[in-house]
Amino acid sequence: MIKIRILSVGKTKEPWLEEALDEYLKRLKPSLQIEFAFAKNDAQLLEWLAKESRVIALDPQGKLLTSEAFSAFLYDQIEAGGSRLSFVIGGPDGLPQTVRQNSPLLSLSPLTFTHQLARLVLVEQLYRAVEIAKGSPYHK
Amino acid sequence: MIKIRILSVGKTKEPWLEEALDEYLKRLKPSLQIEFAFAKNDAQLLEWLAKESRVIALDPQGKLLTSEAFSAFLYDQIEAGGSRLSFVIGGPDGLPQTVRQNSPLLSLSPLTFTHQLARLVLVEQLYRAVEIAKGSPYHK
Repeated sequence: MIKIRILSVGKTKEPWLEEALDEYLKRLKPSLQIEFAFAKNDAQLLEWLAKESRVIALDPQGKLLTSEAFSAFLYDQIEAGGSRLSFVIGGPDGLPQTVRQNSPLLSLSPLTFTHQLARLVLVEQLYRAVEIAKGSPYHK
Repeated sequence: MIKIRILSVGKTKEPWLEEALDEYLKRLKPSLQIEFAFAKNDAQLLEWLAKESRVIALDPQGKLLTSEAFSAFLYDQIEAGGSRLSFVIGGPDGLPQTVRQNSPLLSLSPLTFTHQLARLVLVEQLYRAVEIAKGSPYHK
């Protein structure tokens, strides 16, 4: 089973966001297991990241990809990481410099998103990446 | 009062999406009035668009902007359009060619989004654009 952790700083409680994420997590369940982890602050985030083997950082300066390229990139990373992979999303002040230096940087858009919205966009792209790999009609 | 219409094809009923949009519409109320219109098909969309004075098309081939550039672009368009402006989001088959030829094209990301998610990202960017123009701490 492929396991993906999504790490971010600060927990939020928007019910609509939980509902949207739950829907995608349910659909992803047969293919990917996704776990969210919310650090209290950057120090805790760095501590957690030190234990992760393979981390992709979402960063405004990161590379922009199409959904097809993201799908290919994701499966390469999953294979290289032995079916385990983590994504990290920065808070309002961005990601700590050490994270940005040590991980591949991806950007979801040149637009700035709230980190709640970034989480939803990422999860929708993970679902889309799986469907692209399957050749399903979700992404055409 | 600035009035913005967001036109798309096909209505959706995800409760989480309605909840998220309502939250932003409420926050935007003092600055922008947003109205959604859902066409049954491309023919109806074209009919509606013919009556709109100023239309921005969201399209994968469109220009990518930062949130700051989007804010400046939005207020220029609002001024040029006499406080009325429309955005149009394509369905799974994209926008009709005539729309793509006659409107400025913007892209939210090189990633493909569902049109539901595109609607949410657009509305969050409209809110962010207003906050950027105000110099509020929402966007820093």
